[in-house]
Amino acid sequence: MEISRDHPRYRSLIVRERMSELVRQGVVAPTGLIAHGRGEAFDYMLGERTTETAAEAERAAAAFLLEAKRPVITINGNAAGLCGEGLLSLARAVPAKVEVNLFHRSPERVEKVIAYLEGLGGKDILGREQGSKLEGIASDRAMCCTEGIYSADVVLIPLEDGDRAAALERAGKTVLAIDLNPLSRTAAGSRVAVVDELTRAVPNIERAVRELRDRRDERKRLIMEFDNAENLRRSREEMCRALR
Amino acid sequence: MEISRDHPRYRSLIVRERMSELVRQGVVAPTGLIAHGRGEAFDYMLGERTTETAAEAERAAAAFLLEAKRPVITINGNAAGLCGEGLLSLARAVPAKVEVNLFHRSPERVEKVIAYLEGLGGKDILGREQGSKLEGIASDRAMCCTEGIYSADVVLIPLEDGDRAAALERAGKTVLAIDLNPLSRTAAGSRVAVVDELTRAVPNIERAVRELRDRRDERKRLIMEFDNAENLRRSREEMCRALR
Repeated sequence: MEISRDHPRYRSLIVRERMSELVRQGVVAPTGLIAHGRGEAFDYMLGERTTETAAEAERAAAAFLLEAKRPVITINGNAAGLCGEGLLSLARAVPAKVEVNLFHRSPERVEKVIAYLEGLGGKDILGREQGSKLEGIASDRAMCCTEGIYSADVVLIPLEDGDRAAALERAGKTVLAIDLNPLSRTAAGSRVAVVDELTRAVPNIERAVRELRDRRDERKRLIMEFDNAENLRRSREEMCRALR
Repeated sequence: MEISRDHPRYRSLIVRERMSELVRQGVVAPTGLIAHGRGEAFDYMLGERTTETAAEAERAAAAFLLEAKRPVITINGNAAGLCGEGLLSLARAVPAKVEVNLFHRSPERVEKVIAYLEGLGGKDILGREQGSKLEGIASDRAMCCTEGIYSADVVLIPLEDGDRAAALERAGKTVLAIDLNPLSRTAAGSRVAVVDELTRAVPNIERAVRELRDRRDERKRLIMEFDNAENLRRSREEMCRALR
């Protein structure tokens, strides 16, 4: 469908069309479009830019990823569709393993998402075989890769369901979320919730990874000082400001 | 898919499934799911109820519809899917013409949406023939019915794109919008922006139409006193409260 370049919402319209196309291809689930819309609304209120608060969370997330012994980045359909290349690039930079983990899982969809990522240059992507099970969550959403999420110490979970974020925390993982909704259970239950749009957050985190790679003291300071509840409070405050 | 009646989000899950089904039927465009998600987020912050602010806007909208000489209600795929019966009922109550006007227009989709509305009892629905063109907007979005939107003095535009709301205003129409996003161009550029969920707003407007039918002075007072900018400011304030 032709979208006029002169439409003021050109960029977000392009993204929406791409997401719809990815639904047709089976990469994004239809309900993923509804979730995407919810994110758009919150981003509207953030002013569609990386706030200082989000930038701090992005630096803290980078520090945790660098300090981790077994970092894993999970990717679902929406994350792949919106920021597949960026997430793969971030994973290479840390370096971290990548696991495709879907809310609406089926072997066909997992295959589609992995193939999509491989088409973007992704290698060694986990997700086809899920041999382990997280506790405290319904079976169909508890499965994960033994050498991926299950053995991870730090997990970056873009656009993830609150139920699963909580299960990961209970399993003792350090959870880093990227979620535009500062009121969500995912955000509240994570060690670091980056309240920023995915395609802004991921390159920012990668840049911070590169900057902090040789700065161990700085990383440790960031980790010690980052207070997620306070950071979330400031994000909510920022949204209020946009509303006024 | 089975959804437990005791699931806390039962109602919204049911609506999401219906909307996904209507996408499969070709009534709702895939990008309509994204728009629906946006509305969900804003409604969450409104507390999922009709606020006093929205109730005032609903009464004002009813007053404008009753005072109009050639009122028209536009219906797109989302509006039809979410509130088709309600919009037809409101149209009969005013009475106002109904025009199906789609952002992602194709003869097939127009036919599907009109057929859907006719299945709900709708009659004389405009939209198959679009012989006129609004100015100041790209051609593919400028077409409308000569005897519908084009000749209207007052247009009720639920869930409409900001570009087209602005074009209608420039064309000298009195624009009444229903839009959960108080920051949108649609809301800002309308004479009355009802910041309420469609399935709550439409019956409220119809009730107000019936109440105001024999109260000309009250209608004129409402029209004179309604200040959209102030009303939007209060809606935004209400959303702030939810963030804190």
